Amino acid sequence: MKVGGKHFRTIWRKPDDEGAVQLIDQRFLPHEFVIEQIRTVEQMAAAIREMHVRGAGLIGASAGYGMYLAALEAARQDSFDEHMTGAAAQLRATRPTAVNLSWAIERQLQNIAVGKTADEKVALALRTADSIADEDAEHCRMIGQHGLALIQQIAETKGNKFATANPSSGGAVNVLTHCNAGWLAFVDYGSATAPVYAGHERGLPMHVWVTETRPRNQGSKLTAWELGQHGVPHTVIADSAAGHLMQRGEVDLIIVGTDRTTYTGDVANKIGTYLKALAAKANDVPFYVALPSSSIDWKMRDGLKEIPIEQRGAEEVKNADGWCDGQQIAVRIAPDESPAANYAFDVTPRELVTGLITERGVCEANEKSIRSLFPEHAP
Amino acid sequence: MKVGGKHFRTIWRKPDDEGAVQLIDQRFLPHEFVIEQIRTVEQMAAAIREMHVRGAGLIGASAGYGMYLAALEAARQDSFDEHMTGAAAQLRATRPTAVNLSWAIERQLQNIAVGKTADEKVALALRTADSIADEDAEHCRMIGQHGLALIQQIAETKGNKFATANPSSGGAVNVLTHCNAGWLAFVDYGSATAPVYAGHERGLPMHVWVTETRPRNQGSKLTAWELGQHGVPHTVIADSAAGHLMQRGEVDLIIVGTDRTTYTGDVANKIGTYLKALAAKANDVPFYVALPSSSIDWKMRDGLKEIPIEQRGAEEVKNADGWCDGQQIAVRIAPDESPAANYAFDVTPRELVTGLITERGVCEANEKSIRSLFPEHAP
Repeated sequence: MKVGGKHFRTIWRKPDDEGAVQLIDQRFLPHEFVIEQIRTVEQMAAAIREMHVRGAGLIGASAGYGMYLAALEAARQDSFDEHMTGAAAQLRATRPTAVNLSWAIERQLQNIAVGKTADEKVALALRTADSIADEDAEHCRMIGQHGLALIQQIAETKGNKFATANPSSGGAVNVLTHCNAGWLAFVDYGSATAPVYAGHERGLPMHVWVTETRPRNQGSKLTAWELGQHGVPHTVIADSAAGHLMQRGEVDLIIVGTDRTTYTGDVANKIGTYLKALAAKANDVPFYVALPSSSIDWKMRDGLKEIPIEQRGAEEVKNADGWCDGQQIAVRIAPDESPAANYAFDVTPRELVTGLITERGVCEANEKSIRSLFPEHAP
Repeated sequence: MKVGGKHFRTIWRKPDDEGAVQLIDQRFLPHEFVIEQIRTVEQMAAAIREMHVRGAGLIGASAGYGMYLAALEAARQDSFDEHMTGAAAQLRATRPTAVNLSWAIERQLQNIAVGKTADEKVALALRTADSIADEDAEHCRMIGQHGLALIQQIAETKGNKFATANPSSGGAVNVLTHCNAGWLAFVDYGSATAPVYAGHERGLPMHVWVTETRPRNQGSKLTAWELGQHGVPHTVIADSAAGHLMQRGEVDLIIVGTDRTTYTGDVANKIGTYLKALAAKANDVPFYVALPSSSIDWKMRDGLKEIPIEQRGAEEVKNADGWCDGQQIAVRIAPDESPAANYAFDVTPRELVTGLITERGVCEANEKSIRSLFPEHAP
């Protein structure tokens, strides 16, 4: 999507320099737009580990390009395969829970194995890395197209009711999203944001309620920034304000992403997603989850019982991280002596989910409907 | 309640100095415990306006003492009544929406009018100010006693199930509260916290989940501080985590305060209260509202339609205010260009409220049950 009027992906090969990959170092957003140049698998591992890049799709693509850079190094050494095994282990250790990470590494190892010479292996690694990135972008683009139909429907239903009481949301189709399931979490388009960008592209009046998403504020820091750069009208709100807006009819549609969705339709996503789903149900607001099918866990039946919930450090809750006079600093917002708990995700049970928007189309959040879109995963 | 082992109210007369009132300047909590000395009605008006003191009960008590200080000044002037009229106007203008403010001022004006001499008037003003403060504390103490019965019931029901999976909440009675309806918002005890302090006093194992309450963080800054000072175990969480905790059975009871409750039982309170009430309903967690009856609006029938919702400045949402290296600073957590909306309150419809804990006892959130506790307000 666009940054300062120019199209960017989150990761790309440096033009005219086969030994370099470039990516947006997201740690400094929204304050500073930093492009980082990556030349070695070590640098890529650090970028993933220290969250210069984050988000399921983007982590996969970064691992793919990391393996390509490793292949370039391996071709200059005696033992190609040994070097690649080490590189794979190094990348795999960066974020142990990210499914896309090991998936991308395995795909690279399998494809590279087909090559007979070092040059052939490098060429295969490059083609595979590009494919992983392109497929991620294409899946998100398709999610956007399938979600666009939902948005068009709402725009038509709203028809002449466009003039509402709230000037901030105006007559637009009001989408609420949580956290960042935007193009910054993927290679392009994003999952939850893809239908929004598609609607905007089609000229529909769009407006997004962006929940700030404490404690890490990925909503106010990343989603607000990427929507703003692409020119999509939006308003940042406290996480607590979502229910009030739905009560007042200011939300037409919720679209969120997911870290893992069971084949039965239970959705693990950023902490606070469940509260929004409850309010959506109570106020008849459609609640959709946008996801590439790689986020579906085909082995897990009961999300509430089986999905492990990461607990992160208390400091994230006791502090707020932001900018003051151009400096990035953390301020303390709680007593030093008070303990804090930091659950990173929650699980929204399938009964609260209106539908899943995948790269193959929209389905209901139940086993039968999900399997009908993905028959190759029959039990 | 206790601060550093010593009992404090939020406002009190300075011992051996009839011309001075002291109060806790809450702007520096939890970082610094500052006691401010107030000698004039101007100073008291500034303390209310600039939120050195806040919370319905405490604003009323502050206005009461402000009128007493004004009476001391008036006694040194030619026209007692004229001076008091000016003082009343000055105090009334500080926070125009606070019901307790004008109620306390009117009560002072009426009582002072009975006095024949300036000395008599000053004595009446002093007695009235003390009464307002004492009654506020006594109402909150009674709320604590009525709420204690609910907590004892839970403690008995839990019985031997005390060892739970979560060490942070342990075997205690787990109360979740939102924002600060603590003793810092009143003269002593608080409303939502009063049953917690009563349980703690009775030796019951208590643990409070404190939602940080973005954007102003009254939960993490004030409630966590006052519970910690009084020795009540507690854990700060992001607002978004409340639903997850209820799903996991980690919350036995929710108690919140209210800014205004209709005589039909609809509850206006800090933004985000509604989401917690929805999650409580979905997970069979009792949801109580603790309030002195002065917070009941006997003229308002439909909370969702009639209660005006204050919208505050966008900067509160785009910034986070805290401490770094001993300095109080605001850090920016959103793009400068992104708009933000800041709804300060939401309305929880009566269907989601298990009961109201008042100074006269616990009633259901409906007109019949409320009026049966307060028959003097028959229509």
